[in-house]
Amino acid sequence: MSNPSLNVPSLKVHADDNVSIILSAGGVAAGTRLDTGTVLRDDIPFGHKVALVDIGPGEAVIRYGVPIGIAKATLPEGSWVNEHMIELPEAPSLASLKSPDVPPRPLPPLDGYTFEGYRNADGSVGTRNILGISISVQCVAGVVEHVVQRIRSELLPIYPNVDDVIALTHSYGCGVAINAPDAIIPIRTIKNIALNPNFGGEVMVVGLGCEKLRPEMIMTPGDQSASKMFLQDENLTGFAAMTDDILQQARSHLDRLNQRRRQTCSASELVVGMQCGGSDAFSGITANPVLGFASDLIVRAGGSVMFSEVTEVRDSVHLLPNRAANPQVVQDLIREMRWYDDYLARGGADRAANTTPGNKMGGLSGIVEKSLGSVAKSGSGPISDVIGPGERLKRKGLTFAATPAGDFVCGTLQLAAGMNIHIFTTGRGTPYNLPTTPTIKVATNSALATRWFDLMDVDTGRVATGEITVEEGGWELFHFILDVASGRTETAADKLGIKNDLVLFNPAPIT
Amino acid sequence: MSNPSLNVPSLKVHADDNVSIILSAGGVAAGTRLDTGTVLRDDIPFGHKVALVDIGPGEAVIRYGVPIGIAKATLPEGSWVNEHMIELPEAPSLASLKSPDVPPRPLPPLDGYTFEGYRNADGSVGTRNILGISISVQCVAGVVEHVVQRIRSELLPIYPNVDDVIALTHSYGCGVAINAPDAIIPIRTIKNIALNPNFGGEVMVVGLGCEKLRPEMIMTPGDQSASKMFLQDENLTGFAAMTDDILQQARSHLDRLNQRRRQTCSASELVVGMQCGGSDAFSGITANPVLGFASDLIVRAGGSVMFSEVTEVRDSVHLLPNRAANPQVVQDLIREMRWYDDYLARGGADRAANTTPGNKMGGLSGIVEKSLGSVAKSGSGPISDVIGPGERLKRKGLTFAATPAGDFVCGTLQLAAGMNIHIFTTGRGTPYNLPTTPTIKVATNSALATRWFDLMDVDTGRVATGEITVEEGGWELFHFILDVASGRTETAADKLGIKNDLVLFNPAPIT
Ligand SMILES: [Ca+2]
Ligand SMILES: [Ca+2]
Ligand SMILES: [Ca+2]
Ligand SMILES: [Ca+2]
Ligand SMILES: [Ca+2]
Repeated sequence: MSNPSLNVPSLKVHADDNVSIILSAGGVAAGTRLDTGTVLRDDIPFGHKVALVDIGPGEAVIRYGVPIGIAKATLPEGSWVNEHMIELPEAPSLASLKSPDVPPRPLPPLDGYTFEGYRNADGSVGTRNILGISISVQCVAGVVEHVVQRIRSELLPIYPNVDDVIALTHSYGCGVAINAPDAIIPIRTIKNIALNPNFGGEVMVVGLGCEKLRPEMIMTPGDQSASKMFLQDENLTGFAAMTDDILQQARSHLDRLNQRRRQTCSASELVVGMQCGGSDAFSGITANPVLGFASDLIVRAGGSVMFSEVTEVRDSVHLLPNRAANPQVVQDLIREMRWYDDYLARGGADRAANTTPGNKMGGLSGIVEKSLGSVAKSGSGPISDVIGPGERLKRKGLTFAATPAGDFVCGTLQLAAGMNIHIFTTGRGTPYNLPTTPTIKVATNSALATRWFDLMDVDTGRVATGEITVEEGGWELFHFILDVASGRTETAADKLGIKNDLVLFNPAPIT
Repeated sequence: MSNPSLNVPSLKVHADDNVSIILSAGGVAAGTRLDTGTVLRDDIPFGHKVALVDIGPGEAVIRYGVPIGIAKATLPEGSWVNEHMIELPEAPSLASLKSPDVPPRPLPPLDGYTFEGYRNADGSVGTRNILGISISVQCVAGVVEHVVQRIRSELLPIYPNVDDVIALTHSYGCGVAINAPDAIIPIRTIKNIALNPNFGGEVMVVGLGCEKLRPEMIMTPGDQSASKMFLQDENLTGFAAMTDDILQQARSHLDRLNQRRRQTCSASELVVGMQCGGSDAFSGITANPVLGFASDLIVRAGGSVMFSEVTEVRDSVHLLPNRAANPQVVQDLIREMRWYDDYLARGGADRAANTTPGNKMGGLSGIVEKSLGSVAKSGSGPISDVIGPGERLKRKGLTFAATPAGDFVCGTLQLAAGMNIHIFTTGRGTPYNLPTTPTIKVATNSALATRWFDLMDVDTGRVATGEITVEEGGWELFHFILDVASGRTETAADKLGIKNDLVLFNPAPIT
């Protein structure tokens, strides 16, 4: 922490705010005078909030122009405002959400942007050309991972146009009570992942033979390029026969995948999944607004964008109905929020369980402040649709894809929805990467971007320092997305070869 | 199915049974006369049941001497009895379970059996010498798996006494509502896995830095040989610095692990976890009774045995109180069964969700019949203790370790309990293997053992054909356990290099 100094800038997001954010790396010391005239009463860390006026007990702490909490005791001007000093307001009432009298105006179209992608028979476009091997039950995961190593070393060298082979393994087993009401979520997730555009319609399913979830249940009827096999097949004697059989099937898929070439495609074929992980107080003023601007550009270009993470949207949900393209969107938002409220309550938790110690060290004083920052990712355009966890996207434009906020669970569900580009913002830093989908990692602050120079793709900390505007950052990200989608640019995490497993969302009990 | 023939043997398990099991590979045709005189009215598949007398509607179908279901309509002598023809009885009442007036007699001691194991500072004994790298949050899993590949190729060759390095990765993230009542289960599971004897007390935890579950929360206070690091450490610039730091820490653990040598240990240091997966009608008459006999031998030798899988014990729970070593065991059994009943009911399921299509094709007519076969694994001795999911074993002898029946979830929880040898029985066939613990795979029928000749370790189908007795099979398995524990014999799945991921049991909601 530096010594007290004069005319130090801080960041006030909205004219009505009674707090601002400390921008100085390392924080500022008590006695420092801000350029607003406020003199600090406490040492305040980087990214944390200072009271700009006296806030009385019971009065709201205002950031982004809305209450993020209620002061427990007087917060005098110049004092540090953190999670210990405020109570969370009630979550917005779902029953009072109403569709707008006047539907929101669509964003102006944006023409002429393209990327080089792989066109699929179903009309979707892949950004990678990957052989995905799905499984119907966790029992076969070890064998499939074994075979994938062999395919990677023995076959991929002779199929140079195929980018990779990925075992789409998961922890779904016969333990999952298949007829429990919520079991539909992991089942449709597995089914829809196989339809992701990056697998080119070459669905390959390895089953065991005695499982509850039959491979047929996770394959699309009439799909000609699909194949399946069972390890318990009575014609397969021993392990070598099993693995040779899988290898043999893989060859026919690889033959077809290897014929494919990238073609120029409209930016309207982008399907972008946005999420954040390890947020800090900058998430809501740098990275997420930049994503919001880029989101608007993609929507204007006719593409598809998802924002997700129910527990981070819950406290800002009252801000969304005005953006609903039609009344059904509001009804569907209420349905998904209510389902999640009930799901958490059934397990003795609520949305406040979302925030982490890292969020709080990063300056976020609770789920309301985190939420207001998180929804900035959704930009300003109309919300065209809402889908449930594990469902496929149904419409272009901006969709709220309801998912948990847990990073790999959210990413896996966006994958099932049909995502071909993933954007992930982080303030604290996480080495997150999906093996199936280019994952662009956006730092919310330059300190992280500098320290993790080879793990981060984009530094939006430059917005806080005034180096670039949100608009400039948004255009830069948009062009970066087109480069990554085209295979011209490899993401930082792909260069390093980090590969995380998919993680299913299973709210159903297991036996 | 062969043509009708005469004097065909079938298997009646208990004198009171009114059904028997078809033993002929390929099944038997209608018209066949059994050696009991019964003439078959239907074609009946291998492993399925035939009515030995007329069973009236509402009358019990009896196997193992107890009702496995109630006939929906008349089942004439000679007819095929399967799951479509019976209703399940109610689950046994938990409230009526009472401790016995006379405590069960201990089994007679068995002295003089030893194995060669790795003695640990805490008194436990490992059967393998493995560097396990634990993680506090799923965010770091990709980086740790990347480093593990490097350790395996760069370091293991210079530490020849170390068997392997395993990333103890899991899907626990900040998404798990850490203060929800049931979150204690995944948390203690992660903590206790690191204490498994096969990791030699060399606990290494990789954390991120902003997670809810701090590495300190999953490390044992005062443990001198433990180490931890955080990827967000401000002194680590870039990916290479992170991974080098982990490699450097791994070296000091490997230095110590490499000094260790096997020593002769009493069989009382065995900690055997038993479970089944992909059961058939033979599970309860071949493999599981053989495991039960071996279980008794290990308990007699002073060792520890776990049986698990709550939903498979639930319907036989009334048979257990007579074996409770003390009244607390009965209370704890009731507590675990009730918790699971409630957990399933909360999600709209019940224990009947356990059985699979494969179980039914294999001749099992529902969870009651499956359960009676499954508990045969527990042998005949007193039940010394009951532990909850993810807890460590507290006593030697036979313990009911309450877990789901899902194979990898059960195995992961038995690992957390302290298991150093795993025994897995299967009738339908599953290529199950844990990477951390030798896993002995026992086939319930010779057809599977023959077809999966290189995936199965022991063929107990020989009990059904009369080639060996249950006792002979039990002694054979006991000696095989000592050989595998000593590292003299490698299991089939370890030879093939099949490695399945651990799967956490998380009944808590995720945000
Ligand atoms: Ca987030
Ligand atoms: Ca997230
Ligand atoms: Ca079982
Ligand atoms: Ca099992
Ligand atoms: Ca894995």
